[in-house]
Amino acid sequence: MVEAVFTSKVDQKVRTSAADKLKERFFELLKAVLSNEEPRMIIPKRTLSNTIYDKERKLLLLGSEVFERRFLDVRESRKFMQTLLLGKIIYEALRNNEYPTIRDLYYRGKHTIRYRTYKGTIAEENTWDEQKESDAVLRDIEVYVGLLREDMLILSKEKGKVVGDMRIRSGDDVIDLSKMGHGAYAIEPTPDLIEFLDVNAELVLVVEKDAVFQQLHRAGFWRKYKAILITSAGQPDRATRRFLRRLSEELKLPVYIITDADPYGWYIYSVFKIGSITLSYESERLATPTAKFLGVSMTDIFGDKSKKPYLSEAERKNFIIKAKKTDLKRAQELLNYEWFKSERWIKEINIFLEKHSKLEIEALTGKGLYFLMDTYIPTKIQTSDFID
Amino acid sequence: MVEAVFTSKVDQKVRTSAADKLKERFFELLKAVLSNEEPRMIIPKRTLSNTIYDKERKLLLLGSEVFERRFLDVRESRKFMQTLLLGKIIYEALRNNEYPTIRDLYYRGKHTIRYRTYKGTIAEENTWDEQKESDAVLRDIEVYVGLLREDMLILSKEKGKVVGDMRIRSGDDVIDLSKMGHGAYAIEPTPDLIEFLDVNAELVLVVEKDAVFQQLHRAGFWRKYKAILITSAGQPDRATRRFLRRLSEELKLPVYIITDADPYGWYIYSVFKIGSITLSYESERLATPTAKFLGVSMTDIFGDKSKKPYLSEAERKNFIIKAKKTDLKRAQELLNYEWFKSERWIKEINIFLEKHSKLEIEALTGKGLYFLMDTYIPTKIQTSDFID
Repeated sequence: MVEAVFTSKVDQKVRTSAADKLKERFFELLKAVLSNEEPRMIIPKRTLSNTIYDKERKLLLLGSEVFERRFLDVRESRKFMQTLLLGKIIYEALRNNEYPTIRDLYYRGKHTIRYRTYKGTIAEENTWDEQKESDAVLRDIEVYVGLLREDMLILSKEKGKVVGDMRIRSGDDVIDLSKMGHGAYAIEPTPDLIEFLDVNAELVLVVEKDAVFQQLHRAGFWRKYKAILITSAGQPDRATRRFLRRLSEELKLPVYIITDADPYGWYIYSVFKIGSITLSYESERLATPTAKFLGVSMTDIFGDKSKKPYLSEAERKNFIIKAKKTDLKRAQELLNYEWFKSERWIKEINIFLEKHSKLEIEALTGKGLYFLMDTYIPTKIQTSDFID
Repeated sequence: MVEAVFTSKVDQKVRTSAADKLKERFFELLKAVLSNEEPRMIIPKRTLSNTIYDKERKLLLLGSEVFERRFLDVRESRKFMQTLLLGKIIYEALRNNEYPTIRDLYYRGKHTIRYRTYKGTIAEENTWDEQKESDAVLRDIEVYVGLLREDMLILSKEKGKVVGDMRIRSGDDVIDLSKMGHGAYAIEPTPDLIEFLDVNAELVLVVEKDAVFQQLHRAGFWRKYKAILITSAGQPDRATRRFLRRLSEELKLPVYIITDADPYGWYIYSVFKIGSITLSYESERLATPTAKFLGVSMTDIFGDKSKKPYLSEAERKNFIIKAKKTDLKRAQELLNYEWFKSERWIKEINIFLEKHSKLEIEALTGKGLYFLMDTYIPTKIQTSDFID
């Protein structure tokens, strides 16, 4: 075992508790075997039918349905063994001070088993052939043991960045997120291990696009408006989502999200706010139900009865991009999601379907960075002109 | 004009000097007009024929050829006016404390000009219709004025991250890159404005993949081996390249790059080392000619006369991915580049073409994170087993 001289004390604590929990849960199987019983795992179902949208908490939650993964069932034994294999790999990684990724776990487990068939011939079978197999098993282990991958120090690539007037503790360091110069703090893959030390901010603004984040950061947006400024750099990863959720939940800060005005941008917002249906066990911890969609909205572009548009007719002519067929199809799909069935969202999506128009955030910075920073964003927030 | 209360002092200085230089260069055109001469720009040629590979400095340089962009030439006047338009937009952005992106510049300049033809009818013409037009004009302005876009505070999205035992000044802040906790420092889009304060490092290691960067960082690689650890998170952007070049040039640190063992990974290495042929005026400042390709190399996988492979036969069976036709085609193309014509690279590429095999870095962390960190990387460096 490699000595933990160069790793953080925080990680060393996490390791022990995750390894213990993993061991305890899998030990039940061993006990069954020793008592001459069939080992079987009782695992919460990750199916659509067992996913409940809690309207009060505005969260997707896993229901109470479970299924059995049995060893003495030919349809289940392969999956059963895969689960044990991956459980062992994760446990060893924890004990050996490793930090695997899901890609690693796939490689670590991938091998060929040679065995003698009941006819006496030699046969071969691969543990798994594609990462999606080991990924599915990992999700089973997460719900079986009750630990998310991050809790087991399984790392991943990260795109999220943050700046703002707050101090955090990460690993063995204290980091001042208001002293990042022109750069930013790249969020760690295990944001539950971050400790919020002190915060001087009134809101959180998430911008989908890294380039716009750079602009607002550089112009001092977060300083002027007491904001924690975050970018997901496109589709948000788990760490950025969890980090945002914690800012919302623990610090009670209002969260506003700005994306392009198109179905792709709306979906990014919805991943932040609700998570994904098929991964509801993650959403419980990763989603930020209080997040508001600040813009860019269709009524910002075209106006409506009660509001003047933010763009002139000439600007619309220059800035608007014609929606593609795939955009229109995607918009229709979004209308089927429970959380897009509100009055405001239906209106938003219908304007899009009628006008066939989308708009990038950069069109607003094209109009002027200070227009975005000092007019558009503050006005939208002050007049509560967002979609919940 | 917006007051510069919330922007850094560094930027305020840069603005003035860039605006002055831009003004001075474009002022020459005005002088010509006032003297009743035709305004014309003398612009260095950005063509292949004017790109010189300087073998001594191991750099692509722009040659001395120039071309004239004339106003009174129907083939040139549109481009001439586009250049003036963009020059004006950039100048105004500098004066107004803005930080445009190239997408912004496209939007800012995009409009329709209505004019009366010589027949007396009204006609319309767009300044430009696609960003590639405004991007090409921006490159002309960069070489015409002798300023890269970053010098004019044109920002872009950034993926590069760094940790290591060094202190830098960025904007008005001093940042300790050894105190980033489990996170990292996201490099600013204008790395020329960074000041290196003090450095306690013996080498720079660049890993293509963000997830592997996270693993090595978390395991304390940079602390144990006195390294500055960088990730480009895939194809490197300009800022990461410039930042690396400055580490190499100003701090005289050796630079090692680790990528996947495939043509895509080799190309990432070559972008770091040489830059791209069509943008040689950038390479002069962005390329790092001293960068070494540490691996993963084909001889690491298969071994050769003088070296045992790092992978066992069983590991090769489990880890190797079969090359696709596009990979093989790309490898053939790379053989045509001047800097891939060395003995070692030809050997490397030929093994690939013969074996049809590629390998991800994650296969090495799959074998063990501490194998990668404490065996593979140190051995490769100590035995000079890299490709230059």
